[in-house]
Amino acid sequence: MNDFKKYPKPSVAVDIVVFTIKDDDLKVLLIKRGLPPFKGRWALPGGFVWISESLEEAALRELEEETGVRDVYLEQLYTFGDTKRDPRGRVISVAYYALTDSTKIKPFLTGQEQIQKVLWASVKKLPPLAFDHKDIILYALKRLEYKLEYTAVGLELLPDRFTLTEIQKLYETILGEKLDKRNFRKKMLSLNIIEETGIWKKGLHRPAMLYRFKKTNPLSAFKKIKFEG
Amino acid sequence: MNDFKKYPKPSVAVDIVVFTIKDDDLKVLLIKRGLPPFKGRWALPGGFVWISESLEEAALRELEEETGVRDVYLEQLYTFGDTKRDPRGRVISVAYYALTDSTKIKPFLTGQEQIQKVLWASVKKLPPLAFDHKDIILYALKRLEYKLEYTAVGLELLPDRFTLTEIQKLYETILGEKLDKRNFRKKMLSLNIIEETGIWKKGLHRPAMLYRFKKTNPLSAFKKIKFEG
Repeated sequence: MNDFKKYPKPSVAVDIVVFTIKDDDLKVLLIKRGLPPFKGRWALPGGFVWISESLEEAALRELEEETGVRDVYLEQLYTFGDTKRDPRGRVISVAYYALTDSTKIKPFLTGQEQIQKVLWASVKKLPPLAFDHKDIILYALKRLEYKLEYTAVGLELLPDRFTLTEIQKLYETILGEKLDKRNFRKKMLSLNIIEETGIWKKGLHRPAMLYRFKKTNPLSAFKKIKFEG
Repeated sequence: MNDFKKYPKPSVAVDIVVFTIKDDDLKVLLIKRGLPPFKGRWALPGGFVWISESLEEAALRELEEETGVRDVYLEQLYTFGDTKRDPRGRVISVAYYALTDSTKIKPFLTGQEQIQKVLWASVKKLPPLAFDHKDIILYALKRLEYKLEYTAVGLELLPDRFTLTEIQKLYETILGEKLDKRNFRKKMLSLNIIEETGIWKKGLHRPAMLYRFKKTNPLSAFKKIKFEG
């Protein structure tokens, strides 16, 4: 730890990856850049951290300013610090990510402006992106797939009560692949994060049990597979 | 993303949490601060990021400069950005961590100086620490426990061939708790990350099979518990 003053300081920014499920597809929120560099290119919402705010405060503020999205639970993802990642100079970006219910997100720009400036892009068909934002999105995707395996992170997107078929559909959409029904159910039930409500959903098909989340920390699912002492 | 120049910039530092097993105990590498703030207090190795180096380069450089430790595999842990974490002003710290074999680490200071300035502290008995370094260590500990469950991260500390009893001892030391022998073995073998060598270790006790790591990515252990499509 050397002398505090003698180093030229980098700029510090935040970038936010907001995922949602829309039209049976996993999508990410993008904004169109209005200023150089990469003017007119799609980018993650984000911006510079104020000296008086924490990193998470900066992320929430930028997200709301640029997209109108608020009240989401952000989790820190990774800090991207390559020396050449921004043509303006040294900019270190602390990336955050969130998974939210798209119906809870209200557009804040009006009509045409919203369409031109904000985009929910399918992660399978990303447009050309500014900076290293494609890398950031790919990193966030990996983390999301990872978390799906041992926490209830994906279940935030379901209604309060849901069938096993509905959960499986959600997982298939996020993971982008078909899952075996029997294996999926066995695994999901073994995680011990959902419970039967005792109520059956009736419809076109045969009745299906409605489940709900157990009122525990999502990480308790992980705890269950810890070695028992 | 607003105008680039108009924001006062924070300082950016790196801090490094190096864990090892010594004397059957999980320990963390600390250095004694030679300058204010917190002069004379124990702290994590670390320092300011140069404008021309990546975050990881900064972490490796600081670690070697301050402790002589090199050739370790660092993983980014978390970025700590509370506005009040450093009395000198706004300093954002990108924390890294590593788990290394203590026998591979050679002290680089001589005799008395080494004893005064570098300490392997038991994570169960940390001395008072500078800044938010205790929080950083606790965060790293959580991550380490987490990773133990689904990757082979801890096995880096074992010799090339080892018995199941030796692995169990390693896990018990890191987790700080006794584990049930039968459950542990079942779980470890089910992870599919180690394989029998066909060679038996003989000694005071009855012969025990020697195992080795499978030559696969540690994360393949995780992949094994993915839902099968």
